Amino acid sequence: MAKKPRTAITPTRDEDFAQWYQQVIKAADMAENSPVRGCMIIKPYGFALWENMQRIFDGWLKDYGVQNASFPLLIPLSFLEKEAEHIDGFAKECAVVTHHRLEQGEDGELVPAGKLEEPYVIRPTSETIIGDAMSRWIQSYRDLPMKLNQWGNVMRWEMRTRLFLRTSEFFWHEGHNAFETPEEAKADCLTVLGMYEKFFEEYLALSGFMGIKTPDERFPGALETYAFEAIMQDGKALQAATTHDLGQTFSRSCNIKFQGRNGEEQLAYTTSWAFSTRAIGGMIMVHGDDDGMIMPPRVAPQQVIILPFIKDNSDEILEFADKLASQIKDMELRVRVDNRDMRTPDKMWDAVKKGVPIRVEIGAREMENGEVTFVRRDIGRSSKETLSADAFLGKVQSVLDDIHDNMLERSKAFRDEHVVDGSNVQDIDNFFAKDNIGLVKVPVSVLDDAKLEEVMSKHSLSTRCMPFADDGKKVLIGKAY
Amino acid sequence: MAKKPRTAITPTRDEDFAQWYQQVIKAADMAENSPVRGCMIIKPYGFALWENMQRIFDGWLKDYGVQNASFPLLIPLSFLEKEAEHIDGFAKECAVVTHHRLEQGEDGELVPAGKLEEPYVIRPTSETIIGDAMSRWIQSYRDLPMKLNQWGNVMRWEMRTRLFLRTSEFFWHEGHNAFETPEEAKADCLTVLGMYEKFFEEYLALSGFMGIKTPDERFPGALETYAFEAIMQDGKALQAATTHDLGQTFSRSCNIKFQGRNGEEQLAYTTSWAFSTRAIGGMIMVHGDDDGMIMPPRVAPQQVIILPFIKDNSDEILEFADKLASQIKDMELRVRVDNRDMRTPDKMWDAVKKGVPIRVEIGAREMENGEVTFVRRDIGRSSKETLSADAFLGKVQSVLDDIHDNMLERSKAFRDEHVVDGSNVQDIDNFFAKDNIGLVKVPVSVLDDAKLEEVMSKHSLSTRCMPFADDGKKVLIGKAY
Repeated sequence: MAKKPRTAITPTRDEDFAQWYQQVIKAADMAENSPVRGCMIIKPYGFALWENMQRIFDGWLKDYGVQNASFPLLIPLSFLEKEAEHIDGFAKECAVVTHHRLEQGEDGELVPAGKLEEPYVIRPTSETIIGDAMSRWIQSYRDLPMKLNQWGNVMRWEMRTRLFLRTSEFFWHEGHNAFETPEEAKADCLTVLGMYEKFFEEYLALSGFMGIKTPDERFPGALETYAFEAIMQDGKALQAATTHDLGQTFSRSCNIKFQGRNGEEQLAYTTSWAFSTRAIGGMIMVHGDDDGMIMPPRVAPQQVIILPFIKDNSDEILEFADKLASQIKDMELRVRVDNRDMRTPDKMWDAVKKGVPIRVEIGAREMENGEVTFVRRDIGRSSKETLSADAFLGKVQSVLDDIHDNMLERSKAFRDEHVVDGSNVQDIDNFFAKDNIGLVKVPVSVLDDAKLEEVMSKHSLSTRCMPFADDGKKVLIGKAY
Repeated sequence: MAKKPRTAITPTRDEDFAQWYQQVIKAADMAENSPVRGCMIIKPYGFALWENMQRIFDGWLKDYGVQNASFPLLIPLSFLEKEAEHIDGFAKECAVVTHHRLEQGEDGELVPAGKLEEPYVIRPTSETIIGDAMSRWIQSYRDLPMKLNQWGNVMRWEMRTRLFLRTSEFFWHEGHNAFETPEEAKADCLTVLGMYEKFFEEYLALSGFMGIKTPDERFPGALETYAFEAIMQDGKALQAATTHDLGQTFSRSCNIKFQGRNGEEQLAYTTSWAFSTRAIGGMIMVHGDDDGMIMPPRVAPQQVIILPFIKDNSDEILEFADKLASQIKDMELRVRVDNRDMRTPDKMWDAVKKGVPIRVEIGAREMENGEVTFVRRDIGRSSKETLSADAFLGKVQSVLDDIHDNMLERSKAFRDEHVVDGSNVQDIDNFFAKDNIGLVKVPVSVLDDAKLEEVMSKHSLSTRCMPFADDGKKVLIGKAY
């Protein structure tokens, strides 16, 4: 029998996927739970990843004509009440601000004081407050389309939280656009969903399914919700981004009217769309292995890490490492020299667990020969190669691209291997009864089967989306985060 | 008698400075009040300015070794209670979260439900929550210095608000550093204050006074607060940025201990520092004139605006304008072609009110001659110049630099002309009794004069700082925002 390989993460994915996930985050030093119920602290290494994601996608949004702005953190209760379906969707998880100062209580402890006439909730999403602004800013068809976005924090009070995947406070961008016609609003949803797919594939190396949500999974108040659903290594789906065609729902409740080309006043058509720090959870569960995180190179906080093996001739080795680092920096790549006072194997494992795409090792021999030895994180030790420093510099960008391509290919292959075609409710039941992992794809007619609900409930399933690839004739069903 | 000149902003600065300020913001479309008490909406044009400020300063912070991270929006009451002086400073203006969901009340209206065992406040500042994280993250002197920063929103419930200057929710960066020794902490405060000065002068074209705050003006819990105080056109001071030497105040209350080089456990020395969206208010009040905003070129959302005079040959003129714009973009400058369907004078005044540094006008004659006519916003019509397009392109960067230099010079001259030396309390009283505008500088010994408080109170004055330039031997006193 083969000896169980030593892994940097315990438990392994097979042993306990949920625990493995938490341990990967801890080992990579990306985030931790905070003393505030359900709220996370995103640590510098995790936050640098989010900043890279933001910077890239923000540039795309600007190219698409979207303007960033900032709307209040708090939303008056009366705003939420305007849209019944919307408030039903969020009422159970709102942080409510009821007072505006603190006083010394009878026992000297601090107590809330200055009760507000109307309470506020911390925004769970901003349709109502942005819609209200749009109702003032939009007068005529000449003001349309109006494309607004904000990067920020939102709060949905969660009872069972998991870092990145489900936290009370999370970070996202939320786009809110308004148009003259329903066709433009729909096209906007599809265009932005396409931007998400491109971003997830070309930057996060995440493949997934693009499709339409079934009515029960729509955003509260939306006519139609479109989603990018990725599939994790445990076979569960993760809704990584959504775009919502809100029709005139919010323009009616927020009074977003404009004078049309025909001179008549009419309601605008609005959309909203977002991706959040959840996507980081998705990257971990798609790319990570039993040795920890594997960072997609194009958003990795560090693309190359240099480990100088410091012994006697440490000054020279450090100098060599620093020179190499500055040459890599000149190529606009993100590089770090790990010159901490630590054992080399500890540094090596630290780089592995953090998932740095390329690890460069420089010992006395490398330095003397003007060479570097490097290892790809996506492949591991078997990719080890020694090259002259110049040859390495000439190749480093293409190695990063290869790593990206390899990670995306893996993600696509996993996705394709974990979708099973079925034709009825029984097929769904059979698949999940056998502890298979993955999603089952059935004709949409199955949604009308009265027995579906029971089977979905039995296995804790939900509909994920009706993929565009199947012309909306089929629906993906499975477990989900 | 000279005819009163027509101005784009009513009232003028002389007529009513406070109203003028509000009208400049409105005319430049930078921000507006929201339906949420005291919270502003930063509109795209204002937010683009903030984004430019963030991008530049964030790069400097990273060069200084600061890492960005994200800490919870909410702070448990028990955390605030740890530091008595600190909570005294913020208790009167905290938004308090007491419930975590909404329910239908008896009359069908929404009411707060799910009362929290321990209320939270929305962070007014994050020393306590970041200090708590540092207490876990710092074990040894090897973990120091630790330099953390977050860009985000904070909330201090304000009763009398003014856009950018005083709003319940505002945006800032807050840096929180920890060191082994008090000397390093002090050096950090001075280094960062130097970065602020450089940033304000070289990017925002704002001059000011760097100095030490008097004890009554210190941050709650700080040993020493250092500030950059700018002076507005109405003679009032604006505290534009501060750095706080917190000594061991927060390391004691948050338990930030480390094993020192001598093997013994000791408390760290911490600092915190920030600038906020207030700085935008400062830029308006320093640079604006009776025709509206004047944007400092290096952070201006648009550095050049091109106004094509659209008549018969509009296609050709637009083409000419677009080509010029793309050539300007290639120089990494921010440019916009205003091709809206509007009267040209309206567009011109819009550009003036928004304070775009360079306005380019292209009519039929310019197009035919391959020329452009441009006007500097800081000087106005008298700077009007017509050049060949190529000559303009060769000169545009240096014109922007000239505008910056001119604005900074004006700001410096105003500052220097509006500080009056005094030697005692009577001098202060006399200066402000005569409706003079500006600050009075007196020897610090005046702080010990029992009559000072009465005079300060009579004229609504406060100490602003003890300038470094006077070796801390003098103190600036005046009105302030």
